[in-house]
Amino acid sequence: MTSPSILGQINLRKPYAIFMGDVTDPASAKTGFGLRDWCRADVVGQIRTSDDAVDLGLPDMSVGSAATAGARSIIVGIAPDGGRLSEAWATTLASAAAAGLDVVSGLHTRLEAYPIVEAASKAGGSRLINIRHPGLTFGVGTGRKRSGQRVLTVGTDCALGKKYTALSLAAELKSRGIAATFRATGQTGIMISGAGIPIDAMVADFVAGAAEALSPDAPADHWDVIEGQGSLFHPSYAAVTLGLVHGSQPDAMVLCHDPCRTSVDGLPDYPLPSLEVAARLYEEVARLTNRSARVAAVSLNTGSMTAEQAEAALADVTRELGVPATDPMRFGASPLAAAILG
Amino acid sequence: MTSPSILGQINLRKPYAIFMGDVTDPASAKTGFGLRDWCRADVVGQIRTSDDAVDLGLPDMSVGSAATAGARSIIVGIAPDGGRLSEAWATTLASAAAAGLDVVSGLHTRLEAYPIVEAASKAGGSRLINIRHPGLTFGVGTGRKRSGQRVLTVGTDCALGKKYTALSLAAELKSRGIAATFRATGQTGIMISGAGIPIDAMVADFVAGAAEALSPDAPADHWDVIEGQGSLFHPSYAAVTLGLVHGSQPDAMVLCHDPCRTSVDGLPDYPLPSLEVAARLYEEVARLTNRSARVAAVSLNTGSMTAEQAEAALADVTRELGVPATDPMRFGASPLAAAILG
Repeated sequence: MTSPSILGQINLRKPYAIFMGDVTDPASAKTGFGLRDWCRADVVGQIRTSDDAVDLGLPDMSVGSAATAGARSIIVGIAPDGGRLSEAWATTLASAAAAGLDVVSGLHTRLEAYPIVEAASKAGGSRLINIRHPGLTFGVGTGRKRSGQRVLTVGTDCALGKKYTALSLAAELKSRGIAATFRATGQTGIMISGAGIPIDAMVADFVAGAAEALSPDAPADHWDVIEGQGSLFHPSYAAVTLGLVHGSQPDAMVLCHDPCRTSVDGLPDYPLPSLEVAARLYEEVARLTNRSARVAAVSLNTGSMTAEQAEAALADVTRELGVPATDPMRFGASPLAAAILG
Repeated sequence: MTSPSILGQINLRKPYAIFMGDVTDPASAKTGFGLRDWCRADVVGQIRTSDDAVDLGLPDMSVGSAATAGARSIIVGIAPDGGRLSEAWATTLASAAAAGLDVVSGLHTRLEAYPIVEAASKAGGSRLINIRHPGLTFGVGTGRKRSGQRVLTVGTDCALGKKYTALSLAAELKSRGIAATFRATGQTGIMISGAGIPIDAMVADFVAGAAEALSPDAPADHWDVIEGQGSLFHPSYAAVTLGLVHGSQPDAMVLCHDPCRTSVDGLPDYPLPSLEVAARLYEEVARLTNRSARVAAVSLNTGSMTAEQAEAALADVTRELGVPATDPMRFGASPLAAAILG
């Protein structure tokens, strides 16, 4: 699940130790669970500062034993309330930095805000990587068509499975012997794959240009599987989505949807579009930069349904839209791979 | 043409002196001409460092005479090759800063990069304002519907009259006794009006939120006239455009177009959309945040046509789209005002 290095991307050093601090609420540990579930082979263990902390089921380690086990980065796997590290956590991160491990954080507060962490990274020759503040610069998009094949996950809303759909699809393509690269656009995706561009942190003028840089020219039979962001139907984030669609120049899109959701997450006044409306608008805007862009398949998040309900919902989607549908977390990503390759 | 102060906007101090340096190419002096044409009453004069420099037809002044005449800001009215100031120019700007004038620049290079300018601003108690690097922060968009009326200029492309259409329309509304405020979203517009948010310099996640902040709740009969940016049909800048559309929640849009242009400026592989296609897509996406959004009129840039050709082109547009059309620079903005008020 590693990507080749591209100038200007974030590039992380693996393997990782995952820092869990003393956080007891699993909802605050989504990053840690994501890393465990999607790049287990790249993780040496977890570092917890309390026995009550969320347990990922990975080997418990100290900073010293993680370094001995070969860890090259310590990743903050939890999101504290307010986005700030406690001083106790900073002490642990500083000792990791002093031991030569890069410290990687997706928090709003920069790691440099903690003098002991900054001093330790200088002493240890390690890097402090703030994924929300990447300091990357790109030119504006050029609209030039690039070689190779691209599939982008898009959605009727945020937070309904675009990242995991892309990860599943990339893994399925590779298992079929097809050259494929997962391209991460959000912080958890970047941590999982070890590379990527946090597209929503780019200056607006350069979003499409950053998306172009993320999936450069490639062999004709290579697939970039690009993690989508936001939704064209979200009043806060559609700008990010549109720039990503234009810069990605997708040949195929997988439309992600949660059939149990009727309005935009957290915004009850914003009803979700029908799948037909969503597919039509994504195709219309994507065709600006790739005339043959199409919604090739649907990924349904059926987590809150029985198996029978899920199968019925998938059949409904295929009947309505005329494209294959699956829940890749439940039934595998094979239908998605078949749809984009067919 | 001044806007009330909004927390987080750029706010400039008027009147201005316009710094023209020794630039001899009128194409590099667009900012200076824009200020002369749109806020002449707010300009005390021009400061040129060579007799060969572009002449705006304003009184020539030294820094000292500009300060005596009451200037509170010196605005860089020219764009040097490469976006960097010469040392000679920095000397003049430093003397203005030392005299207490704010220095306002739309160049890529920050004014702080010139130590003599920075030192002079500290000594003089003046501000250095880099409009391309505003350092403003906003939350994400909320999608909450705001009170008051809003009109946004949108376009089939960049650089075809969205700013001047908005300025003309705001002036026309005011001349009819209607409460109206021009809301600037680009650097020249901000300099002209003295306030605004450079929307394309915002982090992508916050573009819609910034646009929401730019046109806050207002009395029911007040019109915000919002300067558009980019185009939904431009592969580089559509993200900025969509965030601005969503955050602006326009009741009405004026669609700006250059009938002599067949492809996106500088991108011959990107044909311009028809006005029908453009109007339909703008209305579809704008209705996410304002169900009654409509393209109320068309503004044609007929600068390269004869009067007869221009009138024929306007008649064609009205026949095709069923909305009034004008070239506000040539025939006035009255049809635009009538269209949004009707």
